[in-house]
Amino acid sequence: MRNLVAAALVLSSGLALADEGQWQPYQMPSIADKLKARGIDIPAEQLADLSRYPMNAVVGLGYCTASFVSPQGLAVTNHHCAFRAIQYNSSKEKNYLADGFLATSMDKEPSAGPNERLYVTEAVTDVSAQIRDALPEEPLARVEAIENRQKALIKECESDDNYRCSVRSFHNGLEYYLIKQLMIRDVRLVYAPPESVGGYGGDIDNYEYPRHSGDFTFLRAYVGKDGKPAPYAEDNVPYQPKSFLKINASGVKAGDGVFAAGYPGSTSRYRLTTELEFASDWLYPTQAKRFQARIDTIEAMGAADAELAIKYAGTVAGMANRMKKLNGLLDGFKATDIAAIKQQREDAFMTWYASHGDTKQMDELKALIKEGQTQYQTTYYFNNAQSSDLLAAANSLYRLAKEKQKADADREQGYQERDMKMFADRLKRIDSSFDVKVDKVLWQADIEEYLGQDQRVDVLDRMLTVKEGQDLSSTLDGLYAATGLTDQATRLGWMDKTPADFEASNDPFIKLAVALYDTRMAQEKAEKTLDGKLSIARPAMMQAVIAYNKDKGWPVYPDANGTLRITYGMVDGYQSRDALYKQPFTRLEGIVAKHTGVEPFNAPQKVLDAIKRGDMGKHKVDDLYPDARSFMCKLFSCQDKPEAFNSVPVNFLSSVDTTGGNSGSPVFNGRGELVGLNFDSTYEAITKDWFFNPEITRAVHVDIRYILWMMDKVDNAQNLLQELTLVTN
Amino acid sequence: MRNLVAAALVLSSGLALADEGQWQPYQMPSIADKLKARGIDIPAEQLADLSRYPMNAVVGLGYCTASFVSPQGLAVTNHHCAFRAIQYNSSKEKNYLADGFLATSMDKEPSAGPNERLYVTEAVTDVSAQIRDALPEEPLARVEAIENRQKALIKECESDDNYRCSVRSFHNGLEYYLIKQLMIRDVRLVYAPPESVGGYGGDIDNYEYPRHSGDFTFLRAYVGKDGKPAPYAEDNVPYQPKSFLKINASGVKAGDGVFAAGYPGSTSRYRLTTELEFASDWLYPTQAKRFQARIDTIEAMGAADAELAIKYAGTVAGMANRMKKLNGLLDGFKATDIAAIKQQREDAFMTWYASHGDTKQMDELKALIKEGQTQYQTTYYFNNAQSSDLLAAANSLYRLAKEKQKADADREQGYQERDMKMFADRLKRIDSSFDVKVDKVLWQADIEEYLGQDQRVDVLDRMLTVKEGQDLSSTLDGLYAATGLTDQATRLGWMDKTPADFEASNDPFIKLAVALYDTRMAQEKAEKTLDGKLSIARPAMMQAVIAYNKDKGWPVYPDANGTLRITYGMVDGYQSRDALYKQPFTRLEGIVAKHTGVEPFNAPQKVLDAIKRGDMGKHKVDDLYPDARSFMCKLFSCQDKPEAFNSVPVNFLSSVDTTGGNSGSPVFNGRGELVGLNFDSTYEAITKDWFFNPEITRAVHVDIRYILWMMDKVDNAQNLLQELTLVTN
Repeated sequence: MRNLVAAALVLSSGLALADEGQWQPYQMPSIADKLKARGIDIPAEQLADLSRYPMNAVVGLGYCTASFVSPQGLAVTNHHCAFRAIQYNSSKEKNYLADGFLATSMDKEPSAGPNERLYVTEAVTDVSAQIRDALPEEPLARVEAIENRQKALIKECESDDNYRCSVRSFHNGLEYYLIKQLMIRDVRLVYAPPESVGGYGGDIDNYEYPRHSGDFTFLRAYVGKDGKPAPYAEDNVPYQPKSFLKINASGVKAGDGVFAAGYPGSTSRYRLTTELEFASDWLYPTQAKRFQARIDTIEAMGAADAELAIKYAGTVAGMANRMKKLNGLLDGFKATDIAAIKQQREDAFMTWYASHGDTKQMDELKALIKEGQTQYQTTYYFNNAQSSDLLAAANSLYRLAKEKQKADADREQGYQERDMKMFADRLKRIDSSFDVKVDKVLWQADIEEYLGQDQRVDVLDRMLTVKEGQDLSSTLDGLYAATGLTDQATRLGWMDKTPADFEASNDPFIKLAVALYDTRMAQEKAEKTLDGKLSIARPAMMQAVIAYNKDKGWPVYPDANGTLRITYGMVDGYQSRDALYKQPFTRLEGIVAKHTGVEPFNAPQKVLDAIKRGDMGKHKVDDLYPDARSFMCKLFSCQDKPEAFNSVPVNFLSSVDTTGGNSGSPVFNGRGELVGLNFDSTYEAITKDWFFNPEITRAVHVDIRYILWMMDKVDNAQNLLQELTLVTN
Repeated sequence: MRNLVAAALVLSSGLALADEGQWQPYQMPSIADKLKARGIDIPAEQLADLSRYPMNAVVGLGYCTASFVSPQGLAVTNHHCAFRAIQYNSSKEKNYLADGFLATSMDKEPSAGPNERLYVTEAVTDVSAQIRDALPEEPLARVEAIENRQKALIKECESDDNYRCSVRSFHNGLEYYLIKQLMIRDVRLVYAPPESVGGYGGDIDNYEYPRHSGDFTFLRAYVGKDGKPAPYAEDNVPYQPKSFLKINASGVKAGDGVFAAGYPGSTSRYRLTTELEFASDWLYPTQAKRFQARIDTIEAMGAADAELAIKYAGTVAGMANRMKKLNGLLDGFKATDIAAIKQQREDAFMTWYASHGDTKQMDELKALIKEGQTQYQTTYYFNNAQSSDLLAAANSLYRLAKEKQKADADREQGYQERDMKMFADRLKRIDSSFDVKVDKVLWQADIEEYLGQDQRVDVLDRMLTVKEGQDLSSTLDGLYAATGLTDQATRLGWMDKTPADFEASNDPFIKLAVALYDTRMAQEKAEKTLDGKLSIARPAMMQAVIAYNKDKGWPVYPDANGTLRITYGMVDGYQSRDALYKQPFTRLEGIVAKHTGVEPFNAPQKVLDAIKRGDMGKHKVDDLYPDARSFMCKLFSCQDKPEAFNSVPVNFLSSVDTTGGNSGSPVFNGRGELVGLNFDSTYEAITKDWFFNPEITRAVHVDIRYILWMMDKVDNAQNLLQELTLVTN
């Protein structure tokens, strides 16, 4: 039975009760009463100020979150966020992924790699007026004006090389903020546990709970001697952050209020029911089918070729993660009728809106959304039919040549001078995760899918025409045999060519890119035109939604967009399913219980030994669950009764509101002291990107006591422990 | 980490606290204080009296337990216990397994089949003195004397055809009881839900929890018009039991005391640590390996041959069940170091024993046990090498011919006149679960295993000698081609032949049986001789164990042996593993959540519809868990918060102490009113046959409210509901 009753909760008490929301820091005073009720004592005004503790200690990695924990630029994040940095320093001889790494002094801290960055958000400025005032009405011109104004603001902001700026849309284009981030370019590896600790449970435990991951790694920010960001240089010095987090070694217990800060990537909470239905009924099942087929293909080919398997390991891991998320979304929609819940909310809003606005606007928005869905479906197979990594490279290279004809400021974002380093990096990276055989088989499957449906594009069909006596497979073999793009230097060389060079080329992938260009541009123009229309309709709706909520006394947080947010909640278990309650803490013994000696459950011997010794020191907790579970254990002295926790907590659950990008986010107690690192969500919570259900939405955190125990009792990282500022309750 | 701390519980507080024990009814007054403490108000003396309510309403099915619930002989047991009766009445046209069955009046109740029996235990008499006094010391003579005295007591007791008697050993041969049971031979099918309700979850959910099985079926006992048991006859009349169970439609809640009565088959709680180690280190892994290979073989052959698959479905289901139990035992031994716990208990006992008895006796017992293990290992492969169903039949037929040379009273048990009906039934049943191809492949694997090891038996080796130009496979093919035993009439015909007929036969399986006979008899003699020695040593140890416990004020219950027992406990959840708590009740919504439309999760539409309608009537419960789990749900009105159960309970857990044979056992509230039917145990509890761990040992019951809801709201069995005596709290 799909759970509809939850809707009643949301409609009756709404945001006022649930620990929902990825709030912009400036909004904290507007929810001060909620923070207080949750036992979060640090003043809301302090949280709103990015120049004060603790927010000025929270930093971005671009795809994850980290936080400073010492005056010498020591930062902590997830192991999986620092994976590239560890891999970069690993070799067969010194395999830090397998064995972990600890620099026993600063001079032994290696570079995390030339591409690692730490971003410190220094200013967030409302630029809504600069972006939105007096925009043209014509959709395409409107969208281009928005883009141009963004680029101009960014250019102005990035006048100093040490800063990276961006303009982000909030509330579906109702507001725009300019984000100014200090960019630290010399990041070093300090301390990482083995992957068998950091990623304990691997794919099997991914999105699952009970969980036992030591998903943490310490990095350090370095700057030039002048204190300013600089590329890696041996004599750079540790960066001195404006502040760093205090660590509370007593941790938290069930029912405690907590909050987390970080850079959540994307949510769809304010999308209409029709958009949810499109995702649940068509988009996700369609994507899941394709991803699963691609995973199966690569795994089958990898089974016969170890080198190929290694090359695609990262790709497969990424797709497996995405598949688990897609399955979690589809299972979640099956378990709870989120569409019905959203529809009820939408209906209630519409009833209000009928007397506060023009319902025709809403009808227009729905028509535009429908148009967008049709557009997406129409181009879906055509886009997939360009999935070859080489064709994708050729497409973007030819586009670059075209864009280069314009002044830098007029170029499409992604093709400006500021983007060229990343552009080249992408072209280089192909080598490490590409194999002609795999690329061809996957591409061929996508082409066949495309050819098997009605929405065809002449120019592509002509290019793919199979010659007499050949089949599609041998035709594609011919393309791969004749291209030079498999060579990195050749690919990079094309970055400096003119459109005429492309048009004269005989490289089959370049020819294909040239042939497809006009169609691709027409498609982009159509999409931008629709975006232009939506850039009027969506903000109008969000404005009404905000007014509707204000009417009811509820503040509104914007959907996640990769910018700095704060979320609060409490340490809490949840009802996973009928008769199955998941308690909020796991402990060391659970690591041993899961240990099989086979990856991903292959705990290092040093960890098993320390647990066996019972060497828990001051990190052990005796009374973590405030209420008993089993009557039997209330009466007798059960080993497993939750009151007698008697161990080191490993992971814990809380109801904070997170999504991808929140990995590594510091989790704070009510006084703003670090008590854990966010690293995952539970399976039942995956649908939270669409709908936050407070009953089952839980984030999974590494407990600070497990990190300190690993440092103290397993890895003897006394140098780092002394660098930290530890407090206790 | 294997859990050793539980040992401390057992050693310090022992049986006095844990809800452990499969007690003989006469023992109930000795644990009256424990029953009282658990809220079981029915007087212990009343429970001890087999002629009074409720014990005179508890009946055996031979392999399961049932109970009378109306004055007209209506009895309720598990669906899986009545499976044969339902199958017997099913056909393609009226498939009661698939669709369920309800007789809307008594005249529509079909026979459950000629072999179904209800056994009412009327008397349990201590015959220890008759069996054990003045036994010869020589081991073989001793064992034969015990057997002969048993047979004599049974013969005297069974003077009336309506009774079935047995003599059972208690406390490993320290005590013997003569059990006298009224045998009702006309059993009819009254009401069974579809298998998709009765066996919801199938093999996947077997031994698992949360569980959602409607594992119940109603039968009715019929007798002749004179009130005495009689074979099926259309004009037989319903049996009027001495009493029948009141049903409490309010059910139970978490923390309530409950008790169950039934016929548990076998446990090994008083076996020595060395015996546990033999089982965990050799016997179970060895059996598991063979069973899994057999299952794999049959499934592979069945995949290509549907008829074959159907024939072996029952065999495979039985082996799959056994495999899950074996895996549960092995996993349980891994999770908890039961050997260490038992060793601690044994050491404590030995310390006491050193000053109360002769420790040499214990050494002797250990030597005998070691001898028995060696004997078992020595003959294990030889015994398996006779695994062909046809060879097993030939072996027992030749044995029968030999036994028939003796007076009935002198024959081995199983070969007496009283056994002949069952003997013939077994020979008949081969047809329905036998296929030459499968029998041969399985047998050949066992023979190859036998040939691959050292312990060989000349006569078998000679019989299996592969002729020149053949291999083992074609040799075996020759045996099957030449035998007449695949024909039922031929098999039954051999029941009347003389040993000389066998010795003159050219049937290859008969020849093999004749050739193996002397070796088999010598093996049996060696085993009986060892049994004779153990029949002195084991009772001596048990006597000491009982004295040891008496010294500490703890009564001792005997290991299960298929006789009527009472066990008490409480409704309670348990800590399944780290951070995972299983709550004691499941509910209707869980059926829908598990429903996939594919067996074994294919709930009938009528059930889904009734749940969807929310048609729960008076069977719905509003407050079933007395304590909240999730803080979030304490603060808000969560749908899933346990306080607001708001549904019909489907299954529940209690800490009563059960094992195989307890299926169908009535579960009573403290006033002796029926509140559920026992039907399974949790996976973590499987090791309880060796060691009862009160923290994790839980039995799984069908909640009476689910049964009543099915009758009332799904199947409209108003005729039966009116026949029941329903009470409420």
